[in-house]
Amino acid sequence: MSGAVGGAAARRGRRPGAPDTRAAILGAARELFAASGYAGTTMRAVAASAGVDAALVHHYFGTKDDLFLAALQVRVDPRTALLPVAEGGVGGAGERLLGVFVDVWDDEESRLPLLALFRGITEPGGQQLVRDGFLRMVLGPVGAALGLDHADRRMALVASQLVGIVVLRYVVLVEPLVSMSGDELVASYAPALQRFLDGPLP
Amino acid sequence: MSGAVGGAAARRGRRPGAPDTRAAILGAARELFAASGYAGTTMRAVAASAGVDAALVHHYFGTKDDLFLAALQVRVDPRTALLPVAEGGVGGAGERLLGVFVDVWDDEESRLPLLALFRGITEPGGQQLVRDGFLRMVLGPVGAALGLDHADRRMALVASQLVGIVVLRYVVLVEPLVSMSGDELVASYAPALQRFLDGPLP
Repeated sequence: MSGAVGGAAARRGRRPGAPDTRAAILGAARELFAASGYAGTTMRAVAASAGVDAALVHHYFGTKDDLFLAALQVRVDPRTALLPVAEGGVGGAGERLLGVFVDVWDDEESRLPLLALFRGITEPGGQQLVRDGFLRMVLGPVGAALGLDHADRRMALVASQLVGIVVLRYVVLVEPLVSMSGDELVASYAPALQRFLDGPLP
Repeated sequence: MSGAVGGAAARRGRRPGAPDTRAAILGAARELFAASGYAGTTMRAVAASAGVDAALVHHYFGTKDDLFLAALQVRVDPRTALLPVAEGGVGGAGERLLGVFVDVWDDEESRLPLLALFRGITEPGGQQLVRDGFLRMVLGPVGAALGLDHADRRMALVASQLVGIVVLRYVVLVEPLVSMSGDELVASYAPALQRFLDGPLP
């Protein structure tokens, strides 16, 4: 629906300054999401901060989730990329999750924006973005779709392993992790991840 | 031996400016270790950069390992802290390693300098320090003492999990990891870590 409204507005050429408007909205969104978290940020607040009408935010960016992903400037939409992980059921989900994860991070196009985001974790706002982005939008839906018991706890364990892989393979560049093929990497971590997903908890 | 030399020099009071000299050596050491890595840094180069005689570096800081640890400003000497991990043999080593790790990181005194060091990983020099500090001085000796096959590979897998715990529990503050007791945390990760130490590799 917002797409239709947007299309009409664009055709009428009502806002020739659209690129600036988009940038202003994205800047405001990123700032607010970092400061107040996903839950504490409304589309209305983003609009007010960018000095535009709330309808325009919906018009350009769709839902709040869409705006959040756009503000993070990541190239991969986790809502579609991770569908195959949940669809196959919990058996083998660890291996499938690792497969998607390594594919995304091994691809420079998608890695660079994620790395920029990750570098922000040493600032308080960046921490919020990682919590909301990685835990809430990436892993949370997988845990829910798989119907895990203690999903929050299990996905936090999974997240800690995936983040550790990011740090060693893509940030600190530790061998032999850097030179391992994607398949080797997946095979090395799949049993541990699978145990976090459906193994016994202490 | 360097301790004896140091003691004599200190008693003779030859260098009233000692605190500044120490600080200059530490600053030079930290800079060189970050730029050239542990292997690429000599005691002589540190001395030259600090504008002092190489003997003075040995006098104040002992061995190159001692100087490295002093430059990192960590409060815990991994060479003694980790002795119990290796001494017990590979059985249960994952749990013992986690125990020491969580004890050190849960203690604010030892955590804060480590956190400061960890925050540096987003800069190239910081990456070198983490590789040399964590992999070479902390985990490397444990892998060697346990007599592991493919020790580098196994310790890199272990490191990726430990670093992920640092990020989620101590940097990004993800629940329920933050609220879990040290014992719960150890129990949650011990099987995965133990598998990295002595399980099958792909």
